Amino acid sequence: MNYSIIIYIIGYVLQIEGLFLLLPCLTALCYRESSGFAFLFTAVLCFLLGKAATFRKPKNTVFYGREGFVTVSMCWIVLSIFGALPFLLNGDIPSVPDALFETVSGFTTTGSTILTDIESLSKCSLFWRSFTHWIGGMGVLVFVLAVLPIAGGGSQMYLMRAESPGPSVNKLVPRVKNTAMILYGIYIVITIIEIILLLIGGMPLFDALTSAFGTAGTGGFGIKNDSFASYSVFCQGVVSIFMILFGINFNIYYLLLCKKHKQAFQSDELRMYLAVILASTVFIAFNIRHLFPGFQALHHALFQVGSIITTTGFATQDFNTWPELSKMILIFLMFFGACAGSTGGGIKISRILILMKSIKKELFSIVHPRSVQKIRVDGQVIEHDVIRSVNVFMAAYLLIIMLSILIVSLENKDTVSTVTSVITTLNNIGPGLELVGPVGNFSSFTALSKFVFLFDMLAGRLEIFPLLILFMPDTWKK
Amino acid sequence: MNYSIIIYIIGYVLQIEGLFLLLPCLTALCYRESSGFAFLFTAVLCFLLGKAATFRKPKNTVFYGREGFVTVSMCWIVLSIFGALPFLLNGDIPSVPDALFETVSGFTTTGSTILTDIESLSKCSLFWRSFTHWIGGMGVLVFVLAVLPIAGGGSQMYLMRAESPGPSVNKLVPRVKNTAMILYGIYIVITIIEIILLLIGGMPLFDALTSAFGTAGTGGFGIKNDSFASYSVFCQGVVSIFMILFGINFNIYYLLLCKKHKQAFQSDELRMYLAVILASTVFIAFNIRHLFPGFQALHHALFQVGSIITTTGFATQDFNTWPELSKMILIFLMFFGACAGSTGGGIKISRILILMKSIKKELFSIVHPRSVQKIRVDGQVIEHDVIRSVNVFMAAYLLIIMLSILIVSLENKDTVSTVTSVITTLNNIGPGLELVGPVGNFSSFTALSKFVFLFDMLAGRLEIFPLLILFMPDTWKK
Repeated sequence: MNYSIIIYIIGYVLQIEGLFLLLPCLTALCYRESSGFAFLFTAVLCFLLGKAATFRKPKNTVFYGREGFVTVSMCWIVLSIFGALPFLLNGDIPSVPDALFETVSGFTTTGSTILTDIESLSKCSLFWRSFTHWIGGMGVLVFVLAVLPIAGGGSQMYLMRAESPGPSVNKLVPRVKNTAMILYGIYIVITIIEIILLLIGGMPLFDALTSAFGTAGTGGFGIKNDSFASYSVFCQGVVSIFMILFGINFNIYYLLLCKKHKQAFQSDELRMYLAVILASTVFIAFNIRHLFPGFQALHHALFQVGSIITTTGFATQDFNTWPELSKMILIFLMFFGACAGSTGGGIKISRILILMKSIKKELFSIVHPRSVQKIRVDGQVIEHDVIRSVNVFMAAYLLIIMLSILIVSLENKDTVSTVTSVITTLNNIGPGLELVGPVGNFSSFTALSKFVFLFDMLAGRLEIFPLLILFMPDTWKK
Repeated sequence: MNYSIIIYIIGYVLQIEGLFLLLPCLTALCYRESSGFAFLFTAVLCFLLGKAATFRKPKNTVFYGREGFVTVSMCWIVLSIFGALPFLLNGDIPSVPDALFETVSGFTTTGSTILTDIESLSKCSLFWRSFTHWIGGMGVLVFVLAVLPIAGGGSQMYLMRAESPGPSVNKLVPRVKNTAMILYGIYIVITIIEIILLLIGGMPLFDALTSAFGTAGTGGFGIKNDSFASYSVFCQGVVSIFMILFGINFNIYYLLLCKKHKQAFQSDELRMYLAVILASTVFIAFNIRHLFPGFQALHHALFQVGSIITTTGFATQDFNTWPELSKMILIFLMFFGACAGSTGGGIKISRILILMKSIKKELFSIVHPRSVQKIRVDGQVIEHDVIRSVNVFMAAYLLIIMLSILIVSLENKDTVSTVTSVITTLNNIGPGLELVGPVGNFSSFTALSKFVFLFDMLAGRLEIFPLLILFMPDTWKK
């Protein structure tokens, strides 16, 4: 294990976090809040520690998948610890597990909260909370790759692969640095368009910024106790559309930029994603038609489907009170998740697609035993390695769900709350059902359960293996 | 598709069912019940139809995996339809979906019931209900292979593979016919030992027979409304032990018969199976220690763990009222299931073992990218085909759970009842939680849901693919 290069990269990440922490300082300045000093102090601390760690360039530049995985996990853990510090310092969230929970929930774009009264927080804390979604959505190491000249070309792909969601990672252009810049470019532009549309819809600037950060990262932190219920139908509609847009693989936007429209719209994953959204919305709208007059059922169904499948977690309604079929559709969408290479969490549509095709192939090969068939997505044969990694991911995913539920069930809460709290954190969604439903929160859980949720949120965002690797003794051998 | 040979084998199965149906006739004779005539009539009908179907030996003996899968599914469906007929004819279960549900639940060794008052049934119906467990446990086609000289040698292995549970099937001896005879021999001997022990424990003969059938097939139908609660601690203990014994791969017993003790006890699957039972029992006993004095907590924990992991489904207590941790352990055991090659259902321990080992291998290969590692069970390398089939099985399994839950949720019952009713039927267990808990039943579901459960029970027993094949248009081409 090459420790020196890992510490070097963590140093860079800390400096970037220091820079990002200046934004809530600015917010505090605008609103004349003294709680902003906590952010300033943390920013300076991050910057100093980061400088110290990057003081000497490592001589040994050996970098493999193992280093990539460990670097990404360690960066996210360090990022979360320093991100939680201001909440503790300014007293907005005085408990250590709670502050960590809220920050990890932010960076991993989960959006679950331990706060019982969100509106009592200072503006700068609210801003930071939402901004962590925006950072975590596209990924902090992708940002590092885009702006800083770190390590050699070999290490970059390992870092990108370890942080990006989905069964395989495409470089858009030959250089990783340029790929990262294009991704962040698209991300920034779409976020700005959403902010403008929300401002047109009459939303105050602060609300528009935080809502856009929450949408872009498919996070789900709101700044109001009722999440999104009190905003206008227009603003809710804008957020519906943008949640779905941020759940799409960013490669598609790059193809559109390159005017490869045909190739973009022929993506199997995109088609399945849109088909699932359409079908779920229609079924739920029909199922809840007795609760809302006319067009409203469709509006709320689309918002909730978009919010859950992209793992954002905003709510316009308490779907805890919806009929069983609607609740079940939403629960399954929690597992599905958004597209690979988007900012969303969950299993990812591309993995579901590969699993479905493997069932079809198996049935075909029973009926036609002599035929040789390959699994194809977008016309391309899927390599055996990718299929294997999808299967192993599913196994590890189910194992983590099981172990997490067993530990959380020690609290003796009701079955639905226990199970959905694990599902919603591991899939980076935000709300579950019952106690952790859209109008509930995670404040009543013990510290032990909160640490399980911390692990699950990180495991969900980093797709399990980077985090599991940390527990292998072999990983830490020189 | 070779239709003539499929019809020929179904004909044989019908004749055997006719023979089996004479046993409840005998019961009716002992208890002087007129409802026994329904069984006699059905027996004669099965025999005549079976004779007609096997009147001419098919000339075309072509037989592949496809024919094997379709034959097994069709045999099980025909078996269930004729098995349900007596309940309808003698009026014990007057509705068609209910009679089918009860019979399929019997043959698939599920043990879920739609009856609200079991004790009001005639003795001959109670006997047949429990006896279907015994037939379904080891498999009706395994029986056919053991006693009748059907088709060529090639077809036998395809039939055995399609009906036997687990990721791969071992022939104990070179000839399939002899393998089938050994399996049924072991099955009969262990069943008889259990009957004798229950008689020694003071159980009446009728109760001992039906309890032994329910245990041997890991079925779970009781003949009392309170399942197993009113029997003595000794009898409960005997059933605990025998449930666990019937959940073991029958290959192990064959090894013991051949005096290969070392090989038998070195089985990875057996060790994991026993380890899971031990750990679950200890955790649950500790978790419910406030509900029962002293030794009783351990007794009830062992009974319930044995009952659920082997997918039998007997109950001594209403575990609905147990703490959340105990309920969750039992729910996960529902998925685990027993060993491959046993009479139990569920995913099977051997599949879980392969999945766990594949996670370990993946982590190892990230840390040591240049190493080549194979998954081994019992020291043997697991072929890629077997691993693939395990993964595809898991995908199809999750897909069926999802679709079933969506359809059943149309009833708008509570979430826990909806989800556990599907889990318990697909895994061939019997009871779930809440409405379908140990003291509940399936009577309140609509016919649509009951047909979903019928499908799930059959899919669980036949391990999905033989049943899915029926829905492929290609299957039915000549």
